[in-house]
Amino acid sequence: MRDLGDLSRCAINTATLGFQAPVAKVIEAIARAGFGGIAPWRREVEGQDVGKIAKLIRDAGLKVTGYCRSTYIPAATRQGFLANVEANFRAIDDAATLGADSFVMVVGGLPEGSKDMAAARAQVAEATAQLLDHGRKVGVRIALEPLHPVYAADRSCLSLLSEALDLCAAIEGVSADPWLGACIDVYHVWWDPNLKRDITRAGAAHRIFGFHVCDWLVPTSDVLNDRGMMGDGVIDIPGIRQQIEAAGYAGMVEVEIFSAATWWKKPIRETLDMCAKRLISAT
Amino acid sequence: MRDLGDLSRCAINTATLGFQAPVAKVIEAIARAGFGGIAPWRREVEGQDVGKIAKLIRDAGLKVTGYCRSTYIPAATRQGFLANVEANFRAIDDAATLGADSFVMVVGGLPEGSKDMAAARAQVAEATAQLLDHGRKVGVRIALEPLHPVYAADRSCLSLLSEALDLCAAIEGVSADPWLGACIDVYHVWWDPNLKRDITRAGAAHRIFGFHVCDWLVPTSDVLNDRGMMGDGVIDIPGIRQQIEAAGYAGMVEVEIFSAATWWKKPIRETLDMCAKRLISAT
Repeated sequence: MRDLGDLSRCAINTATLGFQAPVAKVIEAIARAGFGGIAPWRREVEGQDVGKIAKLIRDAGLKVTGYCRSTYIPAATRQGFLANVEANFRAIDDAATLGADSFVMVVGGLPEGSKDMAAARAQVAEATAQLLDHGRKVGVRIALEPLHPVYAADRSCLSLLSEALDLCAAIEGVSADPWLGACIDVYHVWWDPNLKRDITRAGAAHRIFGFHVCDWLVPTSDVLNDRGMMGDGVIDIPGIRQQIEAAGYAGMVEVEIFSAATWWKKPIRETLDMCAKRLISAT
Repeated sequence: MRDLGDLSRCAINTATLGFQAPVAKVIEAIARAGFGGIAPWRREVEGQDVGKIAKLIRDAGLKVTGYCRSTYIPAATRQGFLANVEANFRAIDDAATLGADSFVMVVGGLPEGSKDMAAARAQVAEATAQLLDHGRKVGVRIALEPLHPVYAADRSCLSLLSEALDLCAAIEGVSADPWLGACIDVYHVWWDPNLKRDITRAGAAHRIFGFHVCDWLVPTSDVLNDRGMMGDGVIDIPGIRQQIEAAGYAGMVEVEIFSAATWWKKPIRETLDMCAKRLISAT
């Protein structure tokens, strides 16, 4: 496996730091701690001078891994669906300005009042094709992030890595240099009995666009915001990283921890220090 | 689809009633409400005169669908594993005394301190083969219940219906009258993009041994004990029942709702009345 020791191959997803500080301070703290990359969120970027934020990131010596994240796609009305696609076009434009390696898609779950997963998935497929077209135009790759099935109802009707890869193949076909791929977060896929098979498949198709790490705590008090620091839970993170890298992934290892009760309450520097430590000892 | 109106094809899993009353009273209440079946739990049965409970159930005119549930299999030591298997042998004996249609296996997650899902799954496969042998001897079918991936760490390293069917095929091979099958609970599998395919496969293999209903609430306050009454959540339960019955399932529709904050606080009769109503209108 690659040596993560100098942190140049490691990125911090800003959600890990709990959005406690303005983005300029967050960029500075991540760079000062030695990390090589950052994944900012739209709440930190939209409505501001995106070019200026991009320059701050570049000047700090950081690369942008993924830009987080898509507006949920499925809607109860055609008008709602089109508005969601349009919002994502604008976010992809910002991703281009930021120089993001990919735009991260969390696709959304069932629209209000619906129980029709097939219909939600059909909307996601239709939108993804359009977002891919737009991404090619402006130079941004699209990364589908399958989310843990616990979020199927309200956050992502896309649950399995195999499902993401099927969608990529259906939309883009075989490509030596695809613009549509998957973002693999250990939290969402660690339990999947087909994970190793699907990582190999994703790598062979050159579709691993991102790799996120955190840990699954036992017990988990809140499935959204009680994710753990690497090493504090039950996920065999080194084992999964080994598979990801054996499959050809050469991108960054990104820390993304939603932790309302623990890490979001700590000073940013303390969290960054622990991320650095655990990237070396437990990732 | 079959008409559930007279409730003779419907069963109540006693967990739905929150274990508020002694089993004799629960049996009586379920029978009086008109249901055709009951699924008791070991906590209501073990340490008592099992033959007497079996007679109470028979005399009430109820069938026993599944006997819930297995001691978790994976253990940190060989001794622990063997003890877990042995505990399940005794539970299967009780299932035979009760005349249960199947013994329901919730297989368990990672042993304390382990991050090795493959090892946990190997223990489950080894134990299941032994429990199947024992079940055949005493006349009890073994029903593997895949649990929602949110429970992968601490309750079930068996998550997907396809995984359960693979395990059945590996252990028992093809059979016109299998003793090893799957129990399908909508709560655990509703999100699975391959659900329809796998239900068809399960039916073709004659391996649908049980069918549980409840609903997935949005939001869910507690993934273990905040399950919903049919119709109160987002699962397309009639759609899944239609697939299950089209696949050849002719057994009972069993209501199993873990609901600490809502249904477990209501009088048993009120819960049973609502189950009856929603089996007709929302199942």
